[in-house]
Amino acid sequence: MRKGERTREMIIEKAAELLNRYGYLSSPISAVMQETGLEKGGIYNHFGSKEELAIEAFHHSVNTMKRHFAKAFENKRNSVDRLLAFLEAFGELAENRPLPGGCPIMNVAIESDDAHPVFCIEARQAMDELYNTITKIVSRGIEKSEISQQTDADAVATILISTLEGALMMSKLYKDPVYVSRATDHLKRYIESSLRTA
Amino acid sequence: MRKGERTREMIIEKAAELLNRYGYLSSPISAVMQETGLEKGGIYNHFGSKEELAIEAFHHSVNTMKRHFAKAFENKRNSVDRLLAFLEAFGELAENRPLPGGCPIMNVAIESDDAHPVFCIEARQAMDELYNTITKIVSRGIEKSEISQQTDADAVATILISTLEGALMMSKLYKDPVYVSRATDHLKRYIESSLRTA
Repeated sequence: MRKGERTREMIIEKAAELLNRYGYLSSPISAVMQETGLEKGGIYNHFGSKEELAIEAFHHSVNTMKRHFAKAFENKRNSVDRLLAFLEAFGELAENRPLPGGCPIMNVAIESDDAHPVFCIEARQAMDELYNTITKIVSRGIEKSEISQQTDADAVATILISTLEGALMMSKLYKDPVYVSRATDHLKRYIESSLRTA
Repeated sequence: MRKGERTREMIIEKAAELLNRYGYLSSPISAVMQETGLEKGGIYNHFGSKEELAIEAFHHSVNTMKRHFAKAFENKRNSVDRLLAFLEAFGELAENRPLPGGCPIMNVAIESDDAHPVFCIEARQAMDELYNTITKIVSRGIEKSEISQQTDADAVATILISTLEGALMMSKLYKDPVYVSRATDHLKRYIESSLRTA
């Protein structure tokens, strides 16, 4: 990797941590300057605009989260076990793992839904991937008779993601992991009682 | 009401609609000037700072939502019916009722949790009220034997609020009410099967 590329990567990495906590759209470039120790020109040497940097930082955060989920799925072959692993891995966001500031997709969704069409599309694409991860697990589970035939994969994806995202918001608001653990307990019971085949 | 007070009320009202959609913290004062047709001085004549105006606008939005819930509870005496009425009323936020831009509490929570301690306290106080509304309904329901004795009121409040807030985020992101209606269906089944006494 050339020096220019290394600097670009360093900026993206530091910006991702900063913007996931303080807002991808609302954080000023001065905050990125402070975090990276670079002058404004040193940053804009690598990015055409603050928006371009923010989108790169968002992709970086989403990729960090995707690797975190992929790791949670390792060695889990049963579909129900994969859903339970997803709950656990998502819950760790309340403890700033694998990144501080909560779920990047929700952060950008709330910041952009009414305000910023370009970012809203980015958030939708990332949410699509998360959502499809769940529906695929459910569909595969139905095929393998691990999950009951009448299960609606879209309903499961919606319920899991909604409940976890909302609970993460509450845990971050109150700085108390209890909300996420109550949500996880509820979803575990839902998965075991409504989804898993006897 | 004196003219000065009427102007102040008008600014708060217009700012509430604007900031709930575009961000209580991140929206520039120029957007409020455009919305109200007032000069900067005309606004700061009534508010000490942009932050003060944003907090007043947030209170206004939260009060709009509280009146909306109070109306939904009218003539509902049974505790389970009150919980079901809450689901319906919350779900209407996905259709911009009673105000555009989603749930003001979640909007401020996400904007402020890591970034702005003063606003974070405001969001917590508003969330406390919403949360206590639910735990009180559940406790009263247990007393009146409408809700089963072993119900954990905190778990119910957490699950209802988390799932609805997360689903509202998804419905606003995709501009599609289906996420909120799936969440509402799930919560209805949860209330009927786990909470309501036979």
